[in-house]
Amino acid sequence: MSEAGAIPCPLCSEPATPSVWADDRCVVVIAGEAAYPALCRVIWRRHVREMSDLAEPDRAHCLRVTLAVEAALRELLNPDKMNIASLGNQVPHLHWHVIPRFADDPHFPDAIWAPQRREGTRRAVDRGQLGELLAAALN
Amino acid sequence: MSEAGAIPCPLCSEPATPSVWADDRCVVVIAGEAAYPALCRVIWRRHVREMSDLAEPDRAHCLRVTLAVEAALRELLNPDKMNIASLGNQVPHLHWHVIPRFADDPHFPDAIWAPQRREGTRRAVDRGQLGELLAAALN
Repeated sequence: MSEAGAIPCPLCSEPATPSVWADDRCVVVIAGEAAYPALCRVIWRRHVREMSDLAEPDRAHCLRVTLAVEAALRELLNPDKMNIASLGNQVPHLHWHVIPRFADDPHFPDAIWAPQRREGTRRAVDRGQLGELLAAALN
Repeated sequence: MSEAGAIPCPLCSEPATPSVWADDRCVVVIAGEAAYPALCRVIWRRHVREMSDLAEPDRAHCLRVTLAVEAALRELLNPDKMNIASLGNQVPHLHWHVIPRFADDPHFPDAIWAPQRREGTRRAVDRGQLGELLAAALN
């Protein structure tokens, strides 16, 4: 839960999108970003603001899941680069963006938050294959 | 070293800016970004593209150093949010951006790579104090 009296945190309820993988500490979703249909998010279930708010075993678990998503997206899509980021300026509840990047995507080589350079090619990821790779790596 | 025949990697030589903290695996620098004078980078010494290219002990070490920088910047500057990101689309050699964010900074609540919203307040960090906190946390 977010702080009492604050606007309810949108990540403190179950994410609207079905999870690709989940355990008792975190949830992995395909975010549904139009320009980046393979962009995944790793959402920490408990409401904490920052990665450094987690105790060491939870930091390690969050990294393990985030890098399993990175590795699975690399295996499935062979991107030119992976971007991973914990920002949360708009939704200050710990979550990681895991983004496969391609030289012909809408913003490359800029960050996806920069002005768009081109229409670009948009690449989706197969939800079933992604879920299988995550289960194999993490379960 | 970067791949043979490629453009020399600018992070494979010692960073031009003096390090705030370093060990045999990584170097922490204050990046010298004009709009974000407290923005730090954690640069992995060996040339790898992605965090998931590291073996597990190195992943843990890189995270430990990155979150020590996050924690030190929080202690010294009390930011509204921390942003941490491994992008590397322009320089594909593993490095982390560790960025204290403030509601009145040039881009908040957008990412620092988005169009600038305002002139904003720019906050520096004391190099000596940062180095002392990192040494206390990591040495």
